[in-house]
Amino acid sequence: MSNIAIKWEFSVREVFQQELANIQTGLIEVADGVVNAIRNATRAFQTSDVALADEVISNDMKIDEAAAHIDDLTIEVLLLQSPVARDLRFVVSTMRISSSLERMGDLAAHIAQLARMRFPVEVSPEPLREHFREAGELCVAQAERVRKLIETEDSQLLDEIIASDDANDALHKEVLNGLSTVDETVPAEQVVDATLANRYFERFSDHAVAIARRMRYLQEGAAAE
Amino acid sequence: MSNIAIKWEFSVREVFQQELANIQTGLIEVADGVVNAIRNATRAFQTSDVALADEVISNDMKIDEAAAHIDDLTIEVLLLQSPVARDLRFVVSTMRISSSLERMGDLAAHIAQLARMRFPVEVSPEPLREHFREAGELCVAQAERVRKLIETEDSQLLDEIIASDDANDALHKEVLNGLSTVDETVPAEQVVDATLANRYFERFSDHAVAIARRMRYLQEGAAAE
Repeated sequence: MSNIAIKWEFSVREVFQQELANIQTGLIEVADGVVNAIRNATRAFQTSDVALADEVISNDMKIDEAAAHIDDLTIEVLLLQSPVARDLRFVVSTMRISSSLERMGDLAAHIAQLARMRFPVEVSPEPLREHFREAGELCVAQAERVRKLIETEDSQLLDEIIASDDANDALHKEVLNGLSTVDETVPAEQVVDATLANRYFERFSDHAVAIARRMRYLQEGAAAE
Repeated sequence: MSNIAIKWEFSVREVFQQELANIQTGLIEVADGVVNAIRNATRAFQTSDVALADEVISNDMKIDEAAAHIDDLTIEVLLLQSPVARDLRFVVSTMRISSSLERMGDLAAHIAQLARMRFPVEVSPEPLREHFREAGELCVAQAERVRKLIETEDSQLLDEIIASDDANDALHKEVLNGLSTVDETVPAEQVVDATLANRYFERFSDHAVAIARRMRYLQEGAAAE
């Protein structure tokens, strides 16, 4: 191969690596948006803060756009670079991860909408407010782990996300039982809203686990090569 | 190019087309499973049929496996064939569509689980039973359109799926209002279950719309070429 051909090959590879790095940076930015969305949605839900709820709802469009942009980048890489082995798994995983992050943003917007719709009535029923505070904290922590996992690919975080899902599931069931046995002082409307919120909180952690599993697939495939 | 090379090129292309056809057949099979799952889950929910609910729950694993198999096929095609243009969009769309179908199967299993858990108590509250019957019918019809759309790529079906989502949304809101205003004769447990079921029915149609949008992307990209 001539020197010119070698240089050309080298720079093609460099462009490719830069494109993969751009995709990763994009995913981290989306994850940052999701962490904020869950944190603010939880606060809006607990304190009936309508302005904060509106912020979450309008920021969700930005998360959707950023996730769609990542999809465009990954399709471009598939088209122009025909990646193989770990690079191909990375690109395929990225599509799945961006889709999970986008859903997490939607769920945060749904929680914010509950707070907004019921204002000035508080959406979180008094007997379960502490449970919802805990669920919010758990889900913010899961989203923070996801954000770090995308950046570092640290397999310990991956295990932590999967392990933390048990606590989230247990809390979800407790709230479900609590809601199913409230007395007649709690209006049906509040039972309906809190049932939905409880479902949305559960789904945050499910998506975090799905992302962790995609990262494991990325790592284990690499180990098998 | 020698005759041998031309023959070889031709057969590589044939193998590729066969692989794409296999992926489509796989998707149709998963869609068939989903149509059945939604139909049976709705019936189990309306009639508290525990045996039918169990069938839906155990069949969900088969749907999950079939969807995972499609993912393996698509990754193999990306790796070995480096598809471009419409073929690449088809493969990427397939991954998204299989993931939506898999979620529709999960939601059917969730509805079946509600029927199973509350047996012998009926899970569908009497004042809203007719609404749930209608929601079930709407969702089975959406799933049937999706199944046909995957097979025929008929753009009229695509429009019908998107248009039908409005009726589904309206019904979802009606049930939500109905549940929020039930009197104290309806136990909280039933309000909780029906709120979840209503959410699951809403999500069926959302996924059908997501699949229709993926098919539109496939068609419009092709038109732009």
